[in-house]
Amino acid sequence: MLLRKLFNPKSVAIVGASTHEGKIGHILVKNLLKYEYPGKIFPINPKANEILGLRTYHSLKEISEAVDLAIIAVKPLEVLESIKICGEKNIEAAIVISAGFKETGAKGARFEQELKTLAKENKVRFLGPNCLGLIDTYSKLNASFAAGMPEQGEIGFFSQSGAMCVAILDWVLGEKIGFSKFISLGNKTDISEIDMLIALGEDENTKVILGYLEGVENGATFIQVAQEVSKKKPIIMIKAGVTSAGARAVSSHTGALAGSESAYQAAFKQSGIIRAKTVNELFNYALAFANQPLPKGPRVAILTNSGGPGIVAADACDQSALQLVRLNSKTAQKLRSFLPPVASIVNPVDIIGDAHFDRYDNALKVLLEASNIDAVIVLLTPTATIEVEETAKVVAKHAQKTKKPILCSFMGQLQVKKGVNYLKKHGVPNYLCPEDAVSALERMWQRQHWLSQPLSTYFPVQADRGRVRYLLEMAKRQGRFHLTETEAKEILMAYGFSFPQTKLARTKEDAVEAAKSMKFPIVLKVVSPNISHKTDVGGVILGLETPQEVEEAFEEIMLKVSEKVPKAAIYGVSVQEMIQEVKETIIGFTRDSQFGPLLMFGLGGIYVEVLKDVSFRIAPIGKREALEMIREIKTYPLLRGIRGEPPADVSALAEGILALNQMALDFPEIVEAEINPFLVKTKGCIAVDARLTIKKE
Amino acid sequence: MLLRKLFNPKSVAIVGASTHEGKIGHILVKNLLKYEYPGKIFPINPKANEILGLRTYHSLKEISEAVDLAIIAVKPLEVLESIKICGEKNIEAAIVISAGFKETGAKGARFEQELKTLAKENKVRFLGPNCLGLIDTYSKLNASFAAGMPEQGEIGFFSQSGAMCVAILDWVLGEKIGFSKFISLGNKTDISEIDMLIALGEDENTKVILGYLEGVENGATFIQVAQEVSKKKPIIMIKAGVTSAGARAVSSHTGALAGSESAYQAAFKQSGIIRAKTVNELFNYALAFANQPLPKGPRVAILTNSGGPGIVAADACDQSALQLVRLNSKTAQKLRSFLPPVASIVNPVDIIGDAHFDRYDNALKVLLEASNIDAVIVLLTPTATIEVEETAKVVAKHAQKTKKPILCSFMGQLQVKKGVNYLKKHGVPNYLCPEDAVSALERMWQRQHWLSQPLSTYFPVQADRGRVRYLLEMAKRQGRFHLTETEAKEILMAYGFSFPQTKLARTKEDAVEAAKSMKFPIVLKVVSPNISHKTDVGGVILGLETPQEVEEAFEEIMLKVSEKVPKAAIYGVSVQEMIQEVKETIIGFTRDSQFGPLLMFGLGGIYVEVLKDVSFRIAPIGKREALEMIREIKTYPLLRGIRGEPPADVSALAEGILALNQMALDFPEIVEAEINPFLVKTKGCIAVDARLTIKKE
Repeated sequence: MLLRKLFNPKSVAIVGASTHEGKIGHILVKNLLKYEYPGKIFPINPKANEILGLRTYHSLKEISEAVDLAIIAVKPLEVLESIKICGEKNIEAAIVISAGFKETGAKGARFEQELKTLAKENKVRFLGPNCLGLIDTYSKLNASFAAGMPEQGEIGFFSQSGAMCVAILDWVLGEKIGFSKFISLGNKTDISEIDMLIALGEDENTKVILGYLEGVENGATFIQVAQEVSKKKPIIMIKAGVTSAGARAVSSHTGALAGSESAYQAAFKQSGIIRAKTVNELFNYALAFANQPLPKGPRVAILTNSGGPGIVAADACDQSALQLVRLNSKTAQKLRSFLPPVASIVNPVDIIGDAHFDRYDNALKVLLEASNIDAVIVLLTPTATIEVEETAKVVAKHAQKTKKPILCSFMGQLQVKKGVNYLKKHGVPNYLCPEDAVSALERMWQRQHWLSQPLSTYFPVQADRGRVRYLLEMAKRQGRFHLTETEAKEILMAYGFSFPQTKLARTKEDAVEAAKSMKFPIVLKVVSPNISHKTDVGGVILGLETPQEVEEAFEEIMLKVSEKVPKAAIYGVSVQEMIQEVKETIIGFTRDSQFGPLLMFGLGGIYVEVLKDVSFRIAPIGKREALEMIREIKTYPLLRGIRGEPPADVSALAEGILALNQMALDFPEIVEAEINPFLVKTKGCIAVDARLTIKKE
Repeated sequence: MLLRKLFNPKSVAIVGASTHEGKIGHILVKNLLKYEYPGKIFPINPKANEILGLRTYHSLKEISEAVDLAIIAVKPLEVLESIKICGEKNIEAAIVISAGFKETGAKGARFEQELKTLAKENKVRFLGPNCLGLIDTYSKLNASFAAGMPEQGEIGFFSQSGAMCVAILDWVLGEKIGFSKFISLGNKTDISEIDMLIALGEDENTKVILGYLEGVENGATFIQVAQEVSKKKPIIMIKAGVTSAGARAVSSHTGALAGSESAYQAAFKQSGIIRAKTVNELFNYALAFANQPLPKGPRVAILTNSGGPGIVAADACDQSALQLVRLNSKTAQKLRSFLPPVASIVNPVDIIGDAHFDRYDNALKVLLEASNIDAVIVLLTPTATIEVEETAKVVAKHAQKTKKPILCSFMGQLQVKKGVNYLKKHGVPNYLCPEDAVSALERMWQRQHWLSQPLSTYFPVQADRGRVRYLLEMAKRQGRFHLTETEAKEILMAYGFSFPQTKLARTKEDAVEAAKSMKFPIVLKVVSPNISHKTDVGGVILGLETPQEVEEAFEEIMLKVSEKVPKAAIYGVSVQEMIQEVKETIIGFTRDSQFGPLLMFGLGGIYVEVLKDVSFRIAPIGKREALEMIREIKTYPLLRGIRGEPPADVSALAEGILALNQMALDFPEIVEAEINPFLVKTKGCIAVDARLTIKKE
């Protein structure tokens, strides 16, 4: 209902309609008239009687008929007044064009808060404030002060930045790219990118959803909605905004590495959103998705009339997820039957510079018929003999018949213009360079692959939550936010993690005694609530083989720690058995302000510190995603075992990640958790050291 | 002289001039006439008397006047004949347009070889064959069958692919980009990219050199020439061509990792060539270099009339070598004095959507005056109130006065068109998206940085070359191409490398005896000419603490190796002291078919194998470049020492690389060398294991 009234209203009132040409309140009326909005238009102006030939009302109240949508372009205080009247008059949808809200500072932010409250009380849903408005090319509604109206098309677009709307609109008008809906979100006080994902997801005129985002408020809902929508339609987005990591205090590697950029990357990946880096990419991808079917596989053939561009395209394929397919002998034989002897019938298929359109026609037919080819990229350089338009017609003809995607790069400008326009008009995307065609096709294949996978299913993990609650409560009461190692371990053990046998020793005699009851070699570690990185202060000594060595190590730790961190409270030294692990890993989570719990996985030690070779997901995740996290890091081959080393128990690692996943969901007050090292063995895992931080209240 | 005759001939003969419109031999004459070539034109056609109003000659011989340049477009056999006549008539420069040479197969390749020999005998230098010809916009020479002539400009361009010439020419004609020279290299049988680098380097009309390359024949000369030329002018290149690594057999990590792509990357880096990935990038960079001064430093200010694009530009800076400068208080104060309160005076400076051109004017003035700002990027979105053309004028005015580079992104198309054209006409490059402006500016800063560094100086390294020569000779005589470990070590010792004390043991008794004469712990390694990766077959055992352990280890090695490589000839087991190293590294070289000796450096073990974290340079290099190789790898922090570890002796590592550098130059028959591991200590390095391969003859 909201959507109907917002995008296809039967009547529109413009609060703040103006008689002065060039004023926003005037352009709003003019845009409705100019682009032939078929519904009723009620301009509201307290003084004027007529604007652009329309009868003008002095106030919203004066209108006796029903109004579906109010477009509001008055001062902030009057906006508030207008929203109240909307409520009284049962106007359920509004677009607040006006600026002067939170973007201007504290006073504006207060107005905005009031606007939000008032609208809720009065049951008015609204777009903006501080926006350009919206355009629906099918209902012929140009409810914006934009300088133009795009053609009808299958792309739905929303943008958080009005300026990007303006720039993109100006560009697409020149490029003649069609849109279904074009929406400026403004400050997103009420209607947000989430509502627009739902709206465009349901809109039958929209085949591809594009967005420009700077931030997301409700991360969890965003992911959930985007996941559902992107199963139906491709969502392609630009996410702008400098990462803000490093600004806040962090007490773990997970915290240090998990910037908001990591969270967005994870969120987009998990919800199947295709990320574009630039506006150019955004539309390059959009045109492919809007017009061509998805490839069933990654196998590409390249058809070209010249070597250079063919090589460029082959290079790009080589660096992508696509495969430059090896033509089978049947295909090669068919091509050989009509191509000149100097033509190249390996892939790229080079039908050489004197090719006329019929050679393109025959070759394209053969390639599309081959069962081991999933997509064809057609390249053309404007040689002396080429008929560009005829070739375009031939390509469009095949594109209409085949179920395989065809993407083109007819290179050049003057000579290829007519052919390129013909291609565009017939739904075959054309790109300035071969690399762009390859990149768009790669995204299509990635989407096909994503669609073929079921969404990851989350299963709850067993845990002794009562015990955890008790321990957290104790720490809170004592005003401690960093839990002690012992507390952290107990909490993690409640989630099924196991630790090596450990005893706390307060004296060197205790330490020797404890060591004797275990299996050598032994590890000693200082225990203190004030020391996070024990190794850095000389608080860890490994590989002790005899009681004598344990005794000496105890003294050395005490000496070094008291030198380096004289103020630290020392509870003693923990005595542990050493583990025969395959690899040292690190698992943890932190909380992202927009997306919530952000899980991290990486190989431990220098891999995390120097190479930052880690992966992220937003909880909740299922086992498939936990495994993906593990396989995603660059050093994954080390876990599979290289040079005769045994493979690590990757499944147990995934279970560990899932247990943290569960803990993050169960206890929102745990803001950071890290197990480092988390040792993976050939069978099972064992946690060695852990850090937990809870929220300051 | 060659260049004068090629690019600015006083007279031109066209061998193969045709009366038939559309034929290449006709277009060649037409292009000379159409673009007003001022010199004499002699069309050669055995039958016709007149072509396009020009008197026609039946043969080159018939011309009595002097001819500077012959353009040849006849069949391959006739090309050979024509070159002979050129020699007789003292015509020193030719352009061979004709195809039908090595690109068509073995027969064509024979023609091409003959052409090369004949031309040399007859002292004729020639471009092509199989090329489009060349264009010089200043001498008004269009000696090509291209469909157009670019405007005069400061870009010199050459391309190995004729198709890329055609496509790019068509595109630049549309974009109205000016050129000085435009050259199609064709098969490069005589005149190559090296000649063109020299020519364009000397050409006073050329400010920027662009190239499209698929391969280089004489790598060493290419680097040397490019180094000299790029100290004078920027060289920007696309290198296309799928990497061919993996195709040849390799016996070391160095060999496995050193593909032709690595060689090109190293060559471009060493010679200051800026690499473009796409045609788009090629011209984005070219326009910046052709029109704007280089920035003195990396500090950028962004000026914008809207938030979104500002954020996009800031993101891009953040991911580049540029720095988004923090405005000092003086600059901020000046800006504050005239900007509205809601404007943002942090960087990006957002003068907000209602900005007129005067606000751009004032703000740009302030930013250019600030001593801590090296460059300004000006962004504009076509808001309702903006005057695009006036703003363009203001920007161009400042650009003319300042010594700092200004790059623009006036976003959109229809509304910004006039302003963008004004900018272009006045030498201010404009980019479709802010990211492209950032990327171009980053390349300018990188060039400035490169120019500020002296070329690396190579100093010869002392070595006992006589001993090396003897050892290589011995191996060759015995028909061995993989040297034994002992030989390899001796050769490397002749170059100053030291190895840990080592004795060869044939029996376990020998091994124990040898170990006793050394310092425990001890390492045992199998010695066999047939085993490359000793660890993989159980041929290495480390950390032996007692004679007893040495004895057992000897037996274990013999057992395992005989199981896994039953056919290997076993010379015995080497007994070594273990080294207390800081880090394990790997140094080596292989020979690239185009560039010669390709040096490699990386951290040893899994860093090389899994992460492929290595760096390359082409020999000869100097110490600065050796140090750069070391600092370039991602894991370099490990060598500096993290977490309290001592720093490694990086200088000694560099000396090691330089010794291999010298060996690669001294002995061309050594095709692969690798020291792995090459242990670096806090002071000095020690080689442990080495592999050398010599050329099969």
